[in-house]
Amino acid sequence: MGAKKIGKQTVRLNEGVRIMSVASTVSKKESEGPLGKYFDKIIEDSMFGEKSWELAESHFIRENMELVVQKAGLKMKDMDYLLCGDLLNQCTASTFGTVDFQIPFFGLYGACSTMGESMSLGAMLIDGGFANYTLVGASSHFCGAEKQFRAPLSLGNQRPPTATWTVTGDGAAVLAKKGNFPCIMEITTGKIVDMGITDANNMGAAMAPAAVDVLVNHFKDTGRTPQDYDVIATGDLGEVGRSLVVALMKKEGYTMDGRYTDCGIEIFDKNAQDTHSGGSGCACSAVTFCAYFYPKLMNGEIGRMLFIPTGALHSPTSSQQGQNIPGIAHAVVIEGCGEKEARK
Amino acid sequence: MGAKKIGKQTVRLNEGVRIMSVASTVSKKESEGPLGKYFDKIIEDSMFGEKSWELAESHFIRENMELVVQKAGLKMKDMDYLLCGDLLNQCTASTFGTVDFQIPFFGLYGACSTMGESMSLGAMLIDGGFANYTLVGASSHFCGAEKQFRAPLSLGNQRPPTATWTVTGDGAAVLAKKGNFPCIMEITTGKIVDMGITDANNMGAAMAPAAVDVLVNHFKDTGRTPQDYDVIATGDLGEVGRSLVVALMKKEGYTMDGRYTDCGIEIFDKNAQDTHSGGSGCACSAVTFCAYFYPKLMNGEIGRMLFIPTGALHSPTSSQQGQNIPGIAHAVVIEGCGEKEARK
Repeated sequence: MGAKKIGKQTVRLNEGVRIMSVASTVSKKESEGPLGKYFDKIIEDSMFGEKSWELAESHFIRENMELVVQKAGLKMKDMDYLLCGDLLNQCTASTFGTVDFQIPFFGLYGACSTMGESMSLGAMLIDGGFANYTLVGASSHFCGAEKQFRAPLSLGNQRPPTATWTVTGDGAAVLAKKGNFPCIMEITTGKIVDMGITDANNMGAAMAPAAVDVLVNHFKDTGRTPQDYDVIATGDLGEVGRSLVVALMKKEGYTMDGRYTDCGIEIFDKNAQDTHSGGSGCACSAVTFCAYFYPKLMNGEIGRMLFIPTGALHSPTSSQQGQNIPGIAHAVVIEGCGEKEARK
Repeated sequence: MGAKKIGKQTVRLNEGVRIMSVASTVSKKESEGPLGKYFDKIIEDSMFGEKSWELAESHFIRENMELVVQKAGLKMKDMDYLLCGDLLNQCTASTFGTVDFQIPFFGLYGACSTMGESMSLGAMLIDGGFANYTLVGASSHFCGAEKQFRAPLSLGNQRPPTATWTVTGDGAAVLAKKGNFPCIMEITTGKIVDMGITDANNMGAAMAPAAVDVLVNHFKDTGRTPQDYDVIATGDLGEVGRSLVVALMKKEGYTMDGRYTDCGIEIFDKNAQDTHSGGSGCACSAVTFCAYFYPKLMNGEIGRMLFIPTGALHSPTSSQQGQNIPGIAHAVVIEGCGEKEARK
């Protein structure tokens, strides 16, 4: 009875917390990528009829969260807690996107790791007996993020090959106690890792060490290896970050083979879409999980998945003051609905 | 066994989660106020020897969190989770203040309600069986906050009477399963409440409706009245916000008498210190609770307290775009170590 701490930074949930429904709403560029056909809703106009990018992001959140609750066959008032966050200063996209819901709200800031953070805390609140249903999610907006973190879009800056493309959209899930749905089984919460990266156009390198840290600790805590998972997916490291993870994990004695991918690689076609290293932003891992991986967990194609949203914990102010860009990553083990073979 | 949901938005913890130790580190202005003698550490230089206000805030966090763990007789590695947040864009004060701790980290954004949010989630992680110890806290810095939210300090803007003064410092607590310490018994998590306030110099009015919402729901859920508490303390509403709460609660049928105060009123002498409506910032409720109320809970002078940090969920961008300033407030019931009389 009750959750169990295993190893140093992993907890195993009591009975597993169900991911009852998921929803993803994205914009035009995402719809043109390899995952285009999997998203629930495409909003061609990235302004979503609003007068600012920031309000547009709130609109993505609002509609997508309404959708995910509806897909669960529930009402907004059934949600015991809402946990979400975004990249905007003071997380205002989440504030204005969810103000109408009137649910007890825990605002999170985990940068692009937010989907991992919201799923972790949302699952623990259910497993701990505090909630029947939690609504969790994360969002980002390309235009809002570029304006805030790098340079005004109208400046037309050239993007270096290490740059990633912030995903516009919202991914959300309803977590529940029971039901025949994919299950959150274990949670390995990440630490802040600072390896001295200072280039705001190389988020992959900034976040890769945090992903490696949480991966290594997850494998140590559980006694597993990468080969015990059908899919391992980091959040938004892109090509640059993924190859760093593979190299760094090799040094740690783990082989990250073809079952390891990154949501930022899956979501865009880097050649056709000119997205350089890949996709990024809180929404990158959130919508890729909801649209692409969840159905495979549901139909049993994926038996066990390690989902690791990754975040870069910097601000324009900290970067301008010459500070490093530390990273964080939160790992969540999700088991699919298929027949369960014996596992470690 | 296990937590119990009571009413619509309150949970009652299993055995209560102990507040094992608290620490508060503040700067000169706070030391000159009525609570000056209660703080653990006074750093006269609000720059704390750093080259920026932002780094100074991180320094306050780091030293204060090291202190609170030491006061608990524990080591940083004993902490299962760290939950904290601040007001800076992308919460970088918390990132750079805690990066050396190497504890699994959940970053929070609750504006000035963060101490309530971190205590709530930190307590639930323990009560749910996920942790033995959690480290929770919140920080703010007058100079960093003014620069970011209002106007550069060097502009010397005149402050209207409704303005509050952001507290410089960090308040932190170590939460634990057992021990003869003040106990977190119930948690009422707030909803985002938007009553149409747009004045960034009147945070009290922006946050008061959220405080009223959580108060009313707390009393409905628990069947109590304000008179069932020895102390009710909101976070940083100041004089303006407190009088709004009293008036609005009267309309709801509750008498908020002398046992109701606001941390922003306690921390500064508004006449002698020229702080207008009172203190504010994440640190306002955090350090006032740790320095002033906790010892009274420890020695039994306070039997039962309702602690309600309050936050304004806006950003300079959202304000400049003409958006309202929604509020949020998180209520935590803390029982003291004194003899427990029969209570509802």
